[in-house]
Amino acid sequence: MTSSKKQPAIILVRPQLGENIGKAARAMLNFGLTEMRLVAPRDGWPNPAAGPAASGADIILDEAKVYVTVEDAVADCGHVYAATVRDRDMPKPVVTPREMAAQLHAQLGQDAKPAIMFGPERSGLTNDDVVLADTVLTVPVNPGFGSLNLAQAVILAAYEFHTYADATPAYQPASDDRLATKEELLGLMEHMETELDKRGYFRSEDRRDPLRRTLRNLVQNAAYNRQEVHTMRGIIKSLARSPKVDN
Amino acid sequence: MTSSKKQPAIILVRPQLGENIGKAARAMLNFGLTEMRLVAPRDGWPNPAAGPAASGADIILDEAKVYVTVEDAVADCGHVYAATVRDRDMPKPVVTPREMAAQLHAQLGQDAKPAIMFGPERSGLTNDDVVLADTVLTVPVNPGFGSLNLAQAVILAAYEFHTYADATPAYQPASDDRLATKEELLGLMEHMETELDKRGYFRSEDRRDPLRRTLRNLVQNAAYNRQEVHTMRGIIKSLARSPKVDN
Repeated sequence: MTSSKKQPAIILVRPQLGENIGKAARAMLNFGLTEMRLVAPRDGWPNPAAGPAASGADIILDEAKVYVTVEDAVADCGHVYAATVRDRDMPKPVVTPREMAAQLHAQLGQDAKPAIMFGPERSGLTNDDVVLADTVLTVPVNPGFGSLNLAQAVILAAYEFHTYADATPAYQPASDDRLATKEELLGLMEHMETELDKRGYFRSEDRRDPLRRTLRNLVQNAAYNRQEVHTMRGIIKSLARSPKVDN
Repeated sequence: MTSSKKQPAIILVRPQLGENIGKAARAMLNFGLTEMRLVAPRDGWPNPAAGPAASGADIILDEAKVYVTVEDAVADCGHVYAATVRDRDMPKPVVTPREMAAQLHAQLGQDAKPAIMFGPERSGLTNDDVVLADTVLTVPVNPGFGSLNLAQAVILAAYEFHTYADATPAYQPASDDRLATKEELLGLMEHMETELDKRGYFRSEDRRDPLRRTLRNLVQNAAYNRQEVHTMRGIIKSLARSPKVDN
């Protein structure tokens, strides 16, 4: 998990439903963000509806700090982002979550903590809230249906922050997953051809070569690993047997 | 909005709560995805709890198609992604939502529709579900807290699909190169299993399921095109015959 010094604070401004605070906490912890700040939660704090919705991310709720005003909540922060859907016509740069993630990572070496503010469910941040931010964060949603749920907005921000740092190497197949050698593939091809030949698959001599090429391409293109070649040979062996009478 | 021909289907497999189906619909529409498929929703369909949670994305719910089995739901699909949290130890490539988005955009020129499957809230997809997929989708979450809510998983996939903006022209396979549909692959799998079963391939009942998964992964991973499925069925049919006496 990202250490708390090295991550932005998530500030929920006047959140309405405890359930949404819990879901936001879960979304944060999914991507390693642990510092939640609450400004004047409508139903007070703690809120009994938050815990169940957090589905195990209770530590985020337990350690959440509560503030009376947005000014208090951002007092110790450096760069602050304000998440908004609507265009605010304010002279501030607007970034996507991905651009924000890059900026945040560049800012983490600085002393003052960066933060991302999210407004109340129904109305979003007011212009007075947004004024306190350095940069506006806007998720590029479907222009015909832009109403992002609070926890959904939080998870997209957290996801982009987390993904930016993620240097996970791509999928590495295990060793016995290794691609079959050509020798193993040829063994399979010949086994298949022999059994097919016994059953008249090739029909006539002038069809034999093109059909054999088709079969070999089929085996080749499947990109079998060693284990899969083994399984294929078992299948051919089994199919070449006579059916059981009682089946 | 992305036209429905140019987007993946979102398949919710055995979803439990109507509320979560509604939230998934909202998440889809936020990013312009409109084709929802439901496999055996626990509480039937329609579900009165879905509408309010969709917050205006009712059109997605109204047009959702309901299926009895995962096989039915993916029958007309080409490339299918299975969203999982746990490592399934299956021989399939694993991608992040971002890698999936790039692949999906490259696949949209093809005939068969791509799809992304999500499992039930509590348990996720079963191994039998995952076997039907070409690729595993895993969101790179905090390893200490990986429980992603259903709608959150859907929104991350939809967001990445929507956000992807690479102008690279995709590889366009020739028309009869097109990937076999799941229905064609299932036909091949069942044909193979039936003939093998007649010959005692599965040996004992407790080996049947794991062996069947191995076979299905083998067929699935070969990424057959339509013509190759046809060839494979010819091979099985031929091998299942008795050898000619004079050969």
